Amino acid sequence: MASHTPARVTAVDTYDIRFPTSRELDGSDAMNPDPDYSAAYVVLRTDAADGHEGHGFAFTIGRGNDVQVAALDALRGHLTGRSVDALCSDPGTLYRDLTGDSQLRWLGPEKGVMHMAIGAVVNAVWDLAAKRARKPLWRLLADAEPEWLVRQIDFRYLTDALTPDEALDLLRRGREGAGARRARLLERGYPAYTTSPGWLGYDDDKLTRLARRAVADGFTQIKLKVGADLDDDIRRCRTARAAVGPDIRLAVDANQRWDVGEAIRWTGALAEFDPYWIEEPTSPDDILGHAAIRRAVAPVRVATGEHAQNRIVVKQLLQAGAVDVLQLDAARVGGVNENLAILLLAARFGVPVCPHAGGVGLCELVQHLAMFDYLAVSGTTEDRVIEYVDHLHDHFLDPVVIRDGHYTAPTAPGFSAALRPESIARYTYPGGTFWAADLPEQTLKGQPA
Amino acid sequence: MASHTPARVTAVDTYDIRFPTSRELDGSDAMNPDPDYSAAYVVLRTDAADGHEGHGFAFTIGRGNDVQVAALDALRGHLTGRSVDALCSDPGTLYRDLTGDSQLRWLGPEKGVMHMAIGAVVNAVWDLAAKRARKPLWRLLADAEPEWLVRQIDFRYLTDALTPDEALDLLRRGREGAGARRARLLERGYPAYTTSPGWLGYDDDKLTRLARRAVADGFTQIKLKVGADLDDDIRRCRTARAAVGPDIRLAVDANQRWDVGEAIRWTGALAEFDPYWIEEPTSPDDILGHAAIRRAVAPVRVATGEHAQNRIVVKQLLQAGAVDVLQLDAARVGGVNENLAILLLAARFGVPVCPHAGGVGLCELVQHLAMFDYLAVSGTTEDRVIEYVDHLHDHFLDPVVIRDGHYTAPTAPGFSAALRPESIARYTYPGGTFWAADLPEQTLKGQPA
Repeated sequence: MASHTPARVTAVDTYDIRFPTSRELDGSDAMNPDPDYSAAYVVLRTDAADGHEGHGFAFTIGRGNDVQVAALDALRGHLTGRSVDALCSDPGTLYRDLTGDSQLRWLGPEKGVMHMAIGAVVNAVWDLAAKRARKPLWRLLADAEPEWLVRQIDFRYLTDALTPDEALDLLRRGREGAGARRARLLERGYPAYTTSPGWLGYDDDKLTRLARRAVADGFTQIKLKVGADLDDDIRRCRTARAAVGPDIRLAVDANQRWDVGEAIRWTGALAEFDPYWIEEPTSPDDILGHAAIRRAVAPVRVATGEHAQNRIVVKQLLQAGAVDVLQLDAARVGGVNENLAILLLAARFGVPVCPHAGGVGLCELVQHLAMFDYLAVSGTTEDRVIEYVDHLHDHFLDPVVIRDGHYTAPTAPGFSAALRPESIARYTYPGGTFWAADLPEQTLKGQPA
Repeated sequence: MASHTPARVTAVDTYDIRFPTSRELDGSDAMNPDPDYSAAYVVLRTDAADGHEGHGFAFTIGRGNDVQVAALDALRGHLTGRSVDALCSDPGTLYRDLTGDSQLRWLGPEKGVMHMAIGAVVNAVWDLAAKRARKPLWRLLADAEPEWLVRQIDFRYLTDALTPDEALDLLRRGREGAGARRARLLERGYPAYTTSPGWLGYDDDKLTRLARRAVADGFTQIKLKVGADLDDDIRRCRTARAAVGPDIRLAVDANQRWDVGEAIRWTGALAEFDPYWIEEPTSPDDILGHAAIRRAVAPVRVATGEHAQNRIVVKQLLQAGAVDVLQLDAARVGGVNENLAILLLAARFGVPVCPHAGGVGLCELVQHLAMFDYLAVSGTTEDRVIEYVDHLHDHFLDPVVIRDGHYTAPTAPGFSAALRPESIARYTYPGGTFWAADLPEQTLKGQPA
């Protein structure tokens, strides 16, 4: 290419990557007994001289990751040939083009497989934009002008709760004192809590050992999966509370297991162990159900959001007074753009955001969003923690760094989304070296491949 | 096969079928200017001696139909080898297995591409079950024991609004007088309304001509698409009202175009034309938004539901008092099983169901559900109409028959879902004879293929 030719997106490469986590019961909970943490992974390649790529992914838990890849493939035509400058200076235009595709939107609209694919692609553009700006994403966002950030948001269906002018006002006020907060962030990091002790598949000894280690490692909150069996849950909560003492926050997570009445009764039965929040007590779609549960289980807080399909559901969770804690997810909604809307909605309603990160790569992504929120939106880390799960990080080129129960602010340019090439080669399904060796063996053992 | 071997599902064949409807502006509305009505189509084949197949589909509007087919393909392993007797005597077990797949559910849960694929497969089983019972589906359902119907429903997340005992009670009471209603249904049919005059792409002359023809054909309600331009909408509503006179119901449909405030203002500006309902005034996810709109625009009714992703959203629309008219869709939720729940929820809250059928094959499906509702649930057709759109029916083996503004009760066994083999051969994308000839021609004209 001649050097004066504007750089374009030349390829949109997609990968079905699956990690065999189910064999260790890492990630096991009441609804997801055997997840194989997976990524429908996308790389945007360009002909720019800088050689940068944009990486993004949708997180899934195994089967169906191929469907998620098919959805990424369906977006290729929207990306190939686009100007890199135009994409990176205004990711919002791509986001609107994708969510507004008049035929594709029938598959949602703005929910499920198609919307997660849009989020992956949009996040890949933000990764590319941050690399080109030579900044970690949290800093690119925190340095951006409020007017530009507002233009990145689709206010459709939001204006009864948040208008562009109100968002602009929140962002202008949010910047005040950002310098001091940035210094503190760089020194101390952003507080984390850990789910690692609490997977449902772990026995009580492992729970005790990991819970004590979490406290020793500086965490002030841990989380337990609950919802499969009440007697087990009472025993596990008692075990965990005994292990960590009265001053550590103990959150419990039902992963959508209950109906409204059952959620109220079950949470009541665990109240003696002083749970800090009950997470996903019922269907993520049940806004009114969460509101009813919250009224009944106070002072136990209600937390949800990892499966909130889009900003419209989040808006209603806030309008209905259904949540004490909003758990955004970096890879379920329409990417950074929609999460900007979600952070501002939460700020408008004064509800703390504690991102969901139980998955592969989710810790890497959400830290940027939480740090931006601290610097430029809510301005505080009070009652705010990012989930931390301590596996699969070594597959990433820029893995999270946890120090004394805090996420260290990333310094590498980008969105920390890139997997190591050797991990891609090994865990691509079914042709990567791990699966190519494993699947025939599983079949020989008589298990379905 | 030896004749004593239990029959099994031997193949799950999937097809990407697209009709080039965008070229005629049939189906054009404020959000969907250029739909190519499409079906991600599935055929269950068995080794039963009777030779019956089960047909089902998800409806899409073009791009992304391949993603929908990929989702169907992801379900193949759940079906192949299953006992045909077991499937057909209890489709609810399959429905629960599919929605409960611990890995696939992450892709929803119960929404979007993956859930529509589940609905297509579940509906194909009902088609097969009805063929084997030698009954049209409406009759299979109406003849079924209430206890069995209740077992077909997943009450998870519903019990704060509808319990199994309440559902059983509704179904027992619903049967009273069914014999007389069946005689009336067979004689008169089920009332329909028509959307055919009102597509946004039609000019005023065509609107007037088609509206008058609708009245002459016996329809007592027509529907206009609105929401792109207010001045146009005022003119088109005036034109339509002049064409049909004061006694025909004139529904308007915004196809999710507005925010809450805009919906209230726009509907107010059309009030002088006495609209019967405003359909999809805002996001299908915005339960609280619909409730706010309904409070503001009364006596104009609020109708929605074609994009309601599952029974949990429908439950909340009813709990929140957000709808006057519930428009179930046969191919968006998890098939007949979930629509049984939706019909019972509507009955519990006393809200009439007027099914959505703007698409390909949707008229063929929903008539069975509405007729069952009339015979065995609500027991009435008062303020109830099934949408009718007069295109693409000739592609079906058992197309709907409209007589004097009414759907004639189907008599052929099954769910009326089967496309003609020659239509499949012609409109399979991109290899069918139509597209194989058309796509190179479009490319030559310089349009993207």
